[in-house]
Amino acid sequence: MEKKRNLYLKTMPVEEAREKYFDRIRDIIEIKRETVDVIKSLGRVTGRAVFARYSSPLFNASAMDGIAVKAEDTRGASETEPLILREDQYAVVDTGDPVKNPFDAVIMAEDIVETHEGVRITASAAPWQHIRPIGEDIVAGEMILPGSHRIRAIDIGVLLSAGITQIEVVKKPEVAIFPTGSEIIEPDGHIEEGSIIESNSRMFENMINQLGGVGHRFPPLKDDYDLILEKVSDAARRFDMVIVNAGSSAGTEDYTVHVLRELGEVIVHGVAVKPGKPVILAVVNDKPVIGLPGYPVSAYIGFENFAAPLLQMMGRRRESINETLEAHISKRLVSSLKHKEYVRVKVGRVGDKFVAAPLARGAGAAMSLVRADGFCVIDQNSEGIEAGEKAVIELYRDRREIENTAVIIGSHDLILDIIADMMPERYPGMFVSSTHVGSMGGLMSLKRGEAHMAPIHLLDEETGEYNIPYVKRLFQEPTVLIKGVGRLQGIMVKKGNPLDIKSIEKLADGRVRYVNRQRGAGTRVLFDYRLRKLGISPEDIRGYEREMTTHMAVAAAVASDSADAGMGILSAANAMDLDFIEIASEEYDFAVPERFLELSQVKAFIEIIKSDEFKKRLEEMGGYDTEGSGSIKRG
Amino acid sequence: MEKKRNLYLKTMPVEEAREKYFDRIRDIIEIKRETVDVIKSLGRVTGRAVFARYSSPLFNASAMDGIAVKAEDTRGASETEPLILREDQYAVVDTGDPVKNPFDAVIMAEDIVETHEGVRITASAAPWQHIRPIGEDIVAGEMILPGSHRIRAIDIGVLLSAGITQIEVVKKPEVAIFPTGSEIIEPDGHIEEGSIIESNSRMFENMINQLGGVGHRFPPLKDDYDLILEKVSDAARRFDMVIVNAGSSAGTEDYTVHVLRELGEVIVHGVAVKPGKPVILAVVNDKPVIGLPGYPVSAYIGFENFAAPLLQMMGRRRESINETLEAHISKRLVSSLKHKEYVRVKVGRVGDKFVAAPLARGAGAAMSLVRADGFCVIDQNSEGIEAGEKAVIELYRDRREIENTAVIIGSHDLILDIIADMMPERYPGMFVSSTHVGSMGGLMSLKRGEAHMAPIHLLDEETGEYNIPYVKRLFQEPTVLIKGVGRLQGIMVKKGNPLDIKSIEKLADGRVRYVNRQRGAGTRVLFDYRLRKLGISPEDIRGYEREMTTHMAVAAAVASDSADAGMGILSAANAMDLDFIEIASEEYDFAVPERFLELSQVKAFIEIIKSDEFKKRLEEMGGYDTEGSGSIKRG
Repeated sequence: MEKKRNLYLKTMPVEEAREKYFDRIRDIIEIKRETVDVIKSLGRVTGRAVFARYSSPLFNASAMDGIAVKAEDTRGASETEPLILREDQYAVVDTGDPVKNPFDAVIMAEDIVETHEGVRITASAAPWQHIRPIGEDIVAGEMILPGSHRIRAIDIGVLLSAGITQIEVVKKPEVAIFPTGSEIIEPDGHIEEGSIIESNSRMFENMINQLGGVGHRFPPLKDDYDLILEKVSDAARRFDMVIVNAGSSAGTEDYTVHVLRELGEVIVHGVAVKPGKPVILAVVNDKPVIGLPGYPVSAYIGFENFAAPLLQMMGRRRESINETLEAHISKRLVSSLKHKEYVRVKVGRVGDKFVAAPLARGAGAAMSLVRADGFCVIDQNSEGIEAGEKAVIELYRDRREIENTAVIIGSHDLILDIIADMMPERYPGMFVSSTHVGSMGGLMSLKRGEAHMAPIHLLDEETGEYNIPYVKRLFQEPTVLIKGVGRLQGIMVKKGNPLDIKSIEKLADGRVRYVNRQRGAGTRVLFDYRLRKLGISPEDIRGYEREMTTHMAVAAAVASDSADAGMGILSAANAMDLDFIEIASEEYDFAVPERFLELSQVKAFIEIIKSDEFKKRLEEMGGYDTEGSGSIKRG
Repeated sequence: MEKKRNLYLKTMPVEEAREKYFDRIRDIIEIKRETVDVIKSLGRVTGRAVFARYSSPLFNASAMDGIAVKAEDTRGASETEPLILREDQYAVVDTGDPVKNPFDAVIMAEDIVETHEGVRITASAAPWQHIRPIGEDIVAGEMILPGSHRIRAIDIGVLLSAGITQIEVVKKPEVAIFPTGSEIIEPDGHIEEGSIIESNSRMFENMINQLGGVGHRFPPLKDDYDLILEKVSDAARRFDMVIVNAGSSAGTEDYTVHVLRELGEVIVHGVAVKPGKPVILAVVNDKPVIGLPGYPVSAYIGFENFAAPLLQMMGRRRESINETLEAHISKRLVSSLKHKEYVRVKVGRVGDKFVAAPLARGAGAAMSLVRADGFCVIDQNSEGIEAGEKAVIELYRDRREIENTAVIIGSHDLILDIIADMMPERYPGMFVSSTHVGSMGGLMSLKRGEAHMAPIHLLDEETGEYNIPYVKRLFQEPTVLIKGVGRLQGIMVKKGNPLDIKSIEKLADGRVRYVNRQRGAGTRVLFDYRLRKLGISPEDIRGYEREMTTHMAVAAAVASDSADAGMGILSAANAMDLDFIEIASEEYDFAVPERFLELSQVKAFIEIIKSDEFKKRLEEMGGYDTEGSGSIKRG
């Protein structure tokens, strides 16, 4: 072939080239999925959201070494009037051991004295003290990981605890790499003047593997137009991406651009970057084919600018980075001078500051490792951190992910899991984080600038109106509601309703073991309101003082027969296969300061709850009304 | 066995426990090495320094597409008086093609016009223009990677370019993991009340793999004293480290601490950390054995606090982190508005600021990728960055490594490679970075606060004294010299000295092709001084204007016959198997501001050059006098 020069006339800025090329690729790439063993899934990216198969703990478990007792047997015990428990009134338990019926409390080993008559106790035990209720950490059916999540070692532990041994992940993109050039030789080849040792392809191969792809490096190809054409054409059928190295500049033997024009479409040839100008971005057989320059530094920069982000897009993977950042602690953390303490925190960027919300502090709460974005370490010499103070957070999640996360704090609903699952799927790189502190807790967080949105369902007793009166009363700054869903509240009971519970009155008969929600939860507000209206005193409800923080935890307690009834939403009852006695229809909305409506993650959030897919998924769960979801309600 | 409780009375602060345990372990662990293929070495840690087998380029190579010419044939060509080169006066070359004798310059394709008589040129070519001299990027025998360096994709490319296909790396630590507890079951096992799904060991296994070790997870062991004793005893023989999970707290069935006391020595039991108090740090058969608590969060924190840093110590590996930092640019960077530019920089922490020194900007300089700590990206809309201005650096080296690096800028000597190799070996976590800009350049960098030390060999013509007069003259701030080495300077010529060069006078005979060092280099100062003393004009030296920046590059030019002679040190001549005509004995010392003498990396540096091992290695190279090396010279 005649030597001819291949001068490109103008070059395109990097960002423009990337945008142009990626816009084209986005439409044609196909995310493939495969199933792998959880124990081999480190670093892989979840293909879909993963839901727990089992609860953890699987049973009511002792949180201490000690004895399991019936709380009512201990009533009246005190320092001055100790009680002796006979052998049939207690069972020795270690931490993690099941606490079986009829026992419903644990007394710590330190607080008992063994005598020949039995065990002496000097204080009464509160029902459910020192017991980790079934599902405290993970509730069966609960979402453990969203889709597009890169699996960490801690996630593997929690997946296994939740009974998941196999997992659907995004398939690793397979990339063919062709070194070209008649002068290049293998590193162990025979060297003569003019030889260039081929090394770029090995660098690419390793960069691809590091980015979660699979690099397939082919032996060097001679500068032969037909040979290169044949090989690239074949590879564009068999692989997800092809890299052709060298032959992308304007030298006389640089065939790559001609080959790619013949085989497909060259989107960009030459970018305004130094080093690394001679880059070719093409599409062949609906696959991305990238021509990179031969000089090692240009090759590296070209790869980093185009191949690396493309691979991440195809593999739904972002690099994970361990770093630290300073964040404002959202609630007071008291710590003892006796030890250094590791508090798991969720971190969000709200406005211009990072906010770290402490999570459950128990050592058994494995899910808190998964939910957390990092640790706040409280020094042994420190008594703690005041709310609003800054502290250093050791992140184990990517800071960029945190910056693109919609921070939701408030009332719990299963639709939050669905939104968290749909977000990164529809808007790659964006996430939802939700923390469940009840409706009032959510509004307080919003006021303190710790969240973007607060999901609430608060009935105003005076007006009979939901949510708006609370927002008006509490906020000075312009704050609106994003309409969420209408949903059914009721009493959840075991399948077949064996105690024949038909109304709230029945819960006060002294036999039904009730399990309550925590103060500030909208469900608790509703329950208390109904009790007052019916003239029933909380003392008449057995188990009123036993509080759970989510609908699913209440449902799990009923399902496992550690309670007979609890208030909750229809979807939670359905998820746990419980019967449901409808009590009220309520409005579950998202309070949001107006200035946050412009944030891209909030916009994405609104688009999701307006979408048909969202409505379809809610229909499948049952109990939701999605009319007007996503519209803005002003007071 | 009778149920008994195993109360530990006091707990130790984390840092104290770690220090106590690691002090004990440091004496017994043995760094094992193995040889692997370079293409499979990603993420591994070099066992020793790696030196180049070949130079890169392997020959004088064209840096442009164009024609290779003899510079003297082009003399006089201009716009008004163009010259025609006949077919035998040039050769068409592409970028990377060899430029063979007698050609010694390249003219770019854009600057020539092909006519039927020959090629028309309108400007003369300077000798060696647009030629990448042999060894420009890598010189055979030069150190490519120091020991204890974690291998990146870019390193693999450069290793292969330098002819290295196999590499000695630190062997991955092998860790046995034993889950224990009669109640635990496998994730796919039969679940009954009281069952706990075993998941910590899988979390550990993956954390170990991520940290560069190999996790071997054994099936769960029942709570049986003799069984646990047998398994742990056997594992402590076969593995580098053992983790026993659960059984480390004070529960009734927690045998681990008793087993470890019987088998070996328990150094720490219980640390002041929450969650994660019940940790056992022991030694069995000279191997670390760690007992970790069963609760997942405690297990995670215990692992991160003790097992993770221990593994890194054993594997000589630190986590790599990609992050950005702000640094002061040490020299003006001019960039064109035509493109975005990636400038490789070396980053150092000097005093209280980070300083980024730009490296070679050529696209062919693969070693610059290895030497660099990151990129400074100059935006397409920017004309560049002024010296001293702050710029954002995208790091691809760990920031902590950068903070523990002694930054050396100045004259080049092979002993710098030896120090860089010895530093992380003798002082794990500490590094030396050296940039070669000549003696005067080094002193200027020191003055601008860009380096900790400047290696210099500057003869004061007035006093005949080396180095001290320059330091006195240039520095206001108290600055001293760390005595380096005495070394021999001379003329390097080809083996057998075919041109019979015996003195500097001979270099002026008009036939000898000389290759010079850059202005400001001590060797250049010495050469110019001798020329003046001999009354020889630089114009009489053929090749005086051809400048190289290191001794090794000069030696490589002579060895490859692209020059006949050059000034340099004996060790460089020996490394390239050249003959050597001694000219002077000189003093090569390190200028250092007094306040830096307190820095740990400077102290470590001094200890190294005082050490017997250092002296022994210099003796092997020849040409060095190490008397008094490491002592402080004040003016």
